[in-house]
Amino acid sequence: MTIPDVSSPPAQPASTPSLTPLAFAPGDGIGPEIMAATLRILAAAGARIDPYEVAVGQQVYLGGVSSGVAPSAWDTLRQTGVLLKGPITTPQGGGYKSVNVTLRKALGLYANVRPARAYAPFVATHHPAMDLVIVRENEEDLYAGIEHRQTDEVYQCLKLVTRDGCERVVRYAFEYARAHGRRRVTAMTKDNIMKLTDGLFHRVFDEVAAEYPDLQADHMIVDIGAARLGARPETFDVIVTLNLYGDILSDIASEVSGSVGLGGSANIGASVAMFEAVHGSAPDLAGQDKANPSGLLNAAALMLTHIGQGEVAQRIQNAWLCALEDGLHTADVVGPHTVRQVGTQAFADAVIERL
Amino acid sequence: MTIPDVSSPPAQPASTPSLTPLAFAPGDGIGPEIMAATLRILAAAGARIDPYEVAVGQQVYLGGVSSGVAPSAWDTLRQTGVLLKGPITTPQGGGYKSVNVTLRKALGLYANVRPARAYAPFVATHHPAMDLVIVRENEEDLYAGIEHRQTDEVYQCLKLVTRDGCERVVRYAFEYARAHGRRRVTAMTKDNIMKLTDGLFHRVFDEVAAEYPDLQADHMIVDIGAARLGARPETFDVIVTLNLYGDILSDIASEVSGSVGLGGSANIGASVAMFEAVHGSAPDLAGQDKANPSGLLNAAALMLTHIGQGEVAQRIQNAWLCALEDGLHTADVVGPHTVRQVGTQAFADAVIERL
Ligand SMILES: CC(C)[C@H](C(=O)O)[C@@H](O)C(=O)O
Ligand SMILES: CC(C)[C@H](C(=O)O)[C@@H](O)C(=O)O
Repeated sequence: MTIPDVSSPPAQPASTPSLTPLAFAPGDGIGPEIMAATLRILAAAGARIDPYEVAVGQQVYLGGVSSGVAPSAWDTLRQTGVLLKGPITTPQGGGYKSVNVTLRKALGLYANVRPARAYAPFVATHHPAMDLVIVRENEEDLYAGIEHRQTDEVYQCLKLVTRDGCERVVRYAFEYARAHGRRRVTAMTKDNIMKLTDGLFHRVFDEVAAEYPDLQADHMIVDIGAARLGARPETFDVIVTLNLYGDILSDIASEVSGSVGLGGSANIGASVAMFEAVHGSAPDLAGQDKANPSGLLNAAALMLTHIGQGEVAQRIQNAWLCALEDGLHTADVVGPHTVRQVGTQAFADAVIERL
Repeated sequence: MTIPDVSSPPAQPASTPSLTPLAFAPGDGIGPEIMAATLRILAAAGARIDPYEVAVGQQVYLGGVSSGVAPSAWDTLRQTGVLLKGPITTPQGGGYKSVNVTLRKALGLYANVRPARAYAPFVATHHPAMDLVIVRENEEDLYAGIEHRQTDEVYQCLKLVTRDGCERVVRYAFEYARAHGRRRVTAMTKDNIMKLTDGLFHRVFDEVAAEYPDLQADHMIVDIGAARLGARPETFDVIVTLNLYGDILSDIASEVSGSVGLGGSANIGASVAMFEAVHGSAPDLAGQDKANPSGLLNAAALMLTHIGQGEVAQRIQNAWLCALEDGLHTADVVGPHTVRQVGTQAFADAVIERL
């Protein structure tokens, strides 16, 4: 099987001066449906974008590329600098790497930004007031992939933490907080045990925090922080942390918000950024027009803000919230506030009507 | 300053054949008060124990022993094989090691057993039905303390996982489940990223699980597991996991149970076991007869079960639950179901009256 190369990056990145070129990968499972819905909404909202499809995921894996990223995709990604990515199914069994981890490392996507907020009463949660953002270091820590087998009885994995890695992500968190009118940045580490590695992250956090006297800064031990996040998420604003803690903390945050299906996230690098839904590819729902496109749509809104089209993003998010408030809900949201249960494309239509 | 040696281990471990010798360390902050209350309840309940005090904590640190464990304490611990430990304050600043981590490593306390359950309606929680136990590997993983500074820009910490370490704790979890009438054991790892180290834990879990066909066994990726634990803790029974994940997961579990102040835990080794409250030393409450002795009392109940006095443990826990249900509450529990707010010793008296 050959890998279809559906991307054809233009000689000049933008064919019309006012359009921003970007790459998109529909993804697997429910990916193509929610991508179609999202791109329709973006077009209707007047987003000034020029989208190029790239091959990433299932078909690429099965074509024999263990990273899941088609060789041709890399050029498009580097040229456009922006990727809107649908959810990917990593095939079971050894030898296949997560597309996400590959893209994060290869493209230097150092900050993983994961907002988590409640949409009560439409989406049930014990924490209607929660509205926080986790900024996760995205390249280092145990994710560096340095692991070895000593004997069949002893295995090792290296946790690697660098000053530059810490500084980049911590600075990003403070800049993000300032740009988004947030007040407080909380670092979480386990530096009572890992005094050198986590200690470095904490020390760099304190140094950088001193440059942002307009923002509150504090530190929590990650076990206590995770517990507080699970029980009282409304007490947090921006959290910045190491890779593995961020992985765990962001899943906790999105779960207690009740809105796993609604969250979008950003992976930010110096020259490339990737945007995606928080949820997975849900193969069992694929092709049934049932999936909720909101996660990818919210990711697309983060993307629009990133490329300087924040006003379009705002318009989309307002329309989306109106649809939700008007009780037009996909099956995953159905509840006491539902007026009409709708499918993927009908939900997109409802958002478009409210733009 | 010299370290007071208050322990005087007997030549023969048990001075009366029917009494089990054990070591106890009152601890710091509220430790001495809750230890006194606990030992009074144990005596009144007819626990057949012979307690020897050992020096551990603040006074030992300040006496110049950086581990916080008096040299003389080790003999008593090894001879009695059982320690009931009050909460310890590790002094601020470099050079002081956590007593807990020191004891776990030195005594080979390989399994950290942390029950977390709700006591609704007396203690507020969103999860009245939760009743789970976390069994945490307690010696390996990033806690091995193998960390180094390469340059001021690069630091490393080694995550070490061994087959024996995994097998001991996994087997303990299954044995515990069987002995306590539990049905299901869930392993949590991040073996989609750490395929060798976490992969070993998962593989050993599957191997051991096959020997317990009477128990359900499943595995969750720890980020998803932590999120589920925060949002739906009532769906878990026994969880077994690596050291660092266990640290984070157990704090989440005790926080969402609403009962951080009430939980006891056990650290189990081949020849020594240590029992303690889940909460800390709360120096700001010390000496005011306000602290809740329940955490240490529940730890003491785990200890009694461990030394074969399960019926005494049961009697104590019943009396304790009656006091709680009768609305006799320390300040941390005060709420709509409180009939009378009581201090530490009055609460202990209330338990004793109900034995
Ligand atoms: C799928 C997995 C590799 C990934 C991670 O561990 O980072 C996921 O859990 C996430 O949070 O994006
Ligand atoms: C105090 C600290 C060293 C300890 C740990 O990390 O294990 C604590 O958090 C715990 O869970 O017992």
